[in-house]
Amino acid sequence: MKVLYWHVDYLKYAAIKKALKSVPDLENDEKEGKIDEGIVVLMSFEKDDNKEKLESFIRDLNNYAKQINAKKVMIYPYAHLSKNLLNPQKSMELLKTLKENMEKNDTFVEVKFSPFGWYKSFEVKVKGHPLAELSREF
Amino acid sequence: MKVLYWHVDYLKYAAIKKALKSVPDLENDEKEGKIDEGIVVLMSFEKDDNKEKLESFIRDLNNYAKQINAKKVMIYPYAHLSKNLLNPQKSMELLKTLKENMEKNDTFVEVKFSPFGWYKSFEVKVKGHPLAELSREF
Repeated sequence: MKVLYWHVDYLKYAAIKKALKSVPDLENDEKEGKIDEGIVVLMSFEKDDNKEKLESFIRDLNNYAKQINAKKVMIYPYAHLSKNLLNPQKSMELLKTLKENMEKNDTFVEVKFSPFGWYKSFEVKVKGHPLAELSREF
Repeated sequence: MKVLYWHVDYLKYAAIKKALKSVPDLENDEKEGKIDEGIVVLMSFEKDDNKEKLESFIRDLNNYAKQINAKKVMIYPYAHLSKNLLNPQKSMELLKTLKENMEKNDTFVEVKFSPFGWYKSFEVKVKGHPLAELSREF
């Protein structure tokens, strides 16, 4: 599991077209989303990923959020961080578990997920302080 | 050498602070830069990189530019794509060679480089078509 953390002023995306046939259709209001003043997590699931790694990730993300005093987060599935991607079915299962676990979590007042398996355009402003961009491997 | 290609409407950056002591100071007008309608290449140099790999990269970038009909490019040094980074001195040497080779190249009407070794804020709009984001390893 490879992730990039971005501390952003904002990110907004628009889902344009399915990149994977197996992913669900989206309602129009699910095709766009935005986060203001928070963390964007670009995330690639890899072949050996499992629920324990999700837990390590959540612990690390919580620590990061406290360090930079962020209260909002968007998980942004991103296939371009690894050459060793987990298959789409298992990735969607892990995303579901991640969503359930993060919604129980009280670090964040807002937790959003951008759609998995869609080509998306996005516009973002990433801050420039020393902790504004970090990469992690779990 | 790991790179991400982004086909962008625009990207603008501002260099905020040195991330590496060994990198040169910047004049004020070097601290900000912008590209419109072109390719941004996020680039991490790795320990085994050399001039031959630069040539492979340039060939691939030229092909990509032709596919999407892009005429402008910005090379954006980006430390977060690899855990196996080349040292700063050698990275700066490769960047210098890359710059010389790309300026000889007639694929692009505009070739820009964002500063290496600085914390930068950036704002970008990445397109959403199927070739708008690609990852490569050389």
